[in-house]
Amino acid sequence: MSSVVVAGIGELVTCDGTGTDGLGARSGAAVVVEDGLVAWIGPQSAAPAADRRVDVGGRAVLPGFVDSHAHLVFAGDRGDEFAARMAGTPYDGGGIGVSVASTRAATDDELRALLAARVAEMRAQGTTTVEVKSGYGLTVEDEVRALRLAREVTQETTFLGAHVVPAEYAADRAAYLDLVTGPMLAAAAPYARWVDVFCEPHSAHAFTAEEARAVLVAGREAGLGLRVHGNQLGPGPGVQLAVELGAASVDHCTYLSGADVDALAAGTTVATLLPGVEFSTRSPYPDAAALLRAGVDIALATDCNPGTCYSSSMPFVIALAVREMGLTPGQAVHAATAGSARSLRRDDVGRLVVGARADLTVLDAPSHVHLSYRAGVPIARALDLRA
Amino acid sequence: MSSVVVAGIGELVTCDGTGTDGLGARSGAAVVVEDGLVAWIGPQSAAPAADRRVDVGGRAVLPGFVDSHAHLVFAGDRGDEFAARMAGTPYDGGGIGVSVASTRAATDDELRALLAARVAEMRAQGTTTVEVKSGYGLTVEDEVRALRLAREVTQETTFLGAHVVPAEYAADRAAYLDLVTGPMLAAAAPYARWVDVFCEPHSAHAFTAEEARAVLVAGREAGLGLRVHGNQLGPGPGVQLAVELGAASVDHCTYLSGADVDALAAGTTVATLLPGVEFSTRSPYPDAAALLRAGVDIALATDCNPGTCYSSSMPFVIALAVREMGLTPGQAVHAATAGSARSLRRDDVGRLVVGARADLTVLDAPSHVHLSYRAGVPIARALDLRA
Repeated sequence: MSSVVVAGIGELVTCDGTGTDGLGARSGAAVVVEDGLVAWIGPQSAAPAADRRVDVGGRAVLPGFVDSHAHLVFAGDRGDEFAARMAGTPYDGGGIGVSVASTRAATDDELRALLAARVAEMRAQGTTTVEVKSGYGLTVEDEVRALRLAREVTQETTFLGAHVVPAEYAADRAAYLDLVTGPMLAAAAPYARWVDVFCEPHSAHAFTAEEARAVLVAGREAGLGLRVHGNQLGPGPGVQLAVELGAASVDHCTYLSGADVDALAAGTTVATLLPGVEFSTRSPYPDAAALLRAGVDIALATDCNPGTCYSSSMPFVIALAVREMGLTPGQAVHAATAGSARSLRRDDVGRLVVGARADLTVLDAPSHVHLSYRAGVPIARALDLRA
Repeated sequence: MSSVVVAGIGELVTCDGTGTDGLGARSGAAVVVEDGLVAWIGPQSAAPAADRRVDVGGRAVLPGFVDSHAHLVFAGDRGDEFAARMAGTPYDGGGIGVSVASTRAATDDELRALLAARVAEMRAQGTTTVEVKSGYGLTVEDEVRALRLAREVTQETTFLGAHVVPAEYAADRAAYLDLVTGPMLAAAAPYARWVDVFCEPHSAHAFTAEEARAVLVAGREAGLGLRVHGNQLGPGPGVQLAVELGAASVDHCTYLSGADVDALAAGTTVATLLPGVEFSTRSPYPDAAALLRAGVDIALATDCNPGTCYSSSMPFVIALAVREMGLTPGQAVHAATAGSARSLRRDDVGRLVVGARADLTVLDAPSHVHLSYRAGVPIARALDLRA
């Protein structure tokens, strides 16, 4: 049993639900970590003895960011598609097929190396928990491979065979749906915690409400928790479906009706906002402040993927949420930690409380406000407490 | 004489004025550096022998970013002002006085350490040339001190005694103008290359067109080049004044009339755009694409400062210029390198051509497009070629 006291903390943000924005922010505090868990939090002057002491020199310390929506198992990039979109070509989900082709063509070791590099890149920016989806395989073998590799780096693995209808099934969507809800699901479920579906009537490549319902119900029967890509490209049924089925999260929520907001406020589904997507697709930003006022639980995540947002930066997401979605700097930090942990139905991450995982992120700054105040500057990193 | 060949370059962006967006982009090229200067550029297979070889592993290489507008000599921060602004408090320039007080109270060594840390932070993000302004001293002694410290880190030093009218002169603006154009200028000029003025009728703290003209004319007579903060908070006279006096640059240009655009197109003054300020003050973005179509020379810079944009990230600025100002990824890179070098009337930086300074920035990416495609991710760094 090895213990560390983390001292010299300028501002400790615990996200324990107390204080302004639920941040539980305090000064003069220290954290004692034992065997990877938070063992004690209190005034530095009262900290119990520990085997080692790490002084962070007046920096702010936060719960590590929880990135609850990421597509990290892919090969190749789509920089050309991005440049074309910035020049006016609209996004319709069709580019996903490009990544499917390059991902299928990659070896296990290539994908493993790419995935490891992306997780390391995230950790270097302060993310300590990441959800990883499949969805660039779209065959039984390729989806299972993606989840098997994802499971090597995270327990938050999501089966997204229903990302798009692959080109080879374009003439027979029903057959692909049978595959996804049948043999593919059966093979994928042992490697997945969650099932997800791109429910989007505005894309010919994605799934209707009825199709999405079939995917989610089958996933639930296979023992998986539910997540939904909904209301990204226009108003749609994704939010209502997610709430009705008790999904843990409905992600994007770019276009919400009043009825959608009411449903979210009344239900148990977290609205996960992905402002990096609005940034990278030049879409309007949803009003996160209005969601909070309505009583909706919100989360922030990157959606890191090669098409609609190739950013892995939670600090960038936080800065966008403040600038563009009306959140205070504190609300944005809460949504990127405790909020996104809730969207994964986790209470051992996203908060610094006794018994939680000691995932600490440190800022080269005295306050969490600097995550949005110093937009674009890489001030956050996961704190490495190994001796 | 020591030479290095930089090889394994995935994409070499030279900004030599040729090709799409003037980027002079090519693949399969190598660069030979001798004594800090570019000695040779050509196909890697034809590269001459050199003492050392640095392989960048397929990464893109660009001219180091030229950040032609930064306020780096200050103490303290204004995170509280930022948070209040995001909650709706408008910006009027009054907060500058807060930084003046904390900067005056700092020792030389404190300011020197802060300045060095900021320059290092910029370099770690790919910036190899930075302009540094005074303007948080506003006494003869404090302005000279700021410029003397700035001169230790850059030759691009700018006297900005006319940043705001300090509180102690609020009742006698004319006396402060006499000081700035008289004894303060005389004492500052030996340490400055440029004179600058915050010309802004929408701020009671800043300077009118007539006052700004007096500052610029006096600066020119003292041998300094001219720069102007103009048209930031609303339509104003700054652009016209800058063009009329042949200033090297007019910076901000947030609010431009058709006549302003015409004047810029007909003149020799570069329009330096600072989208980090529009981001951090929630202001509208000027249309950079329209400026290019009109034939205006543009530059991009951070305006890194504790009030309106505490971002030191040129990649962030590039991403904003693409998302919000209509530039292509290539146009934004050109404006952040060759464009901003032009705003400093420099031809030895901002381009990779034989004889130029060998300021190379390398991306953890295969193409310059990734600077905007991977918004928020710290993929750029200045390449260190020391043995």
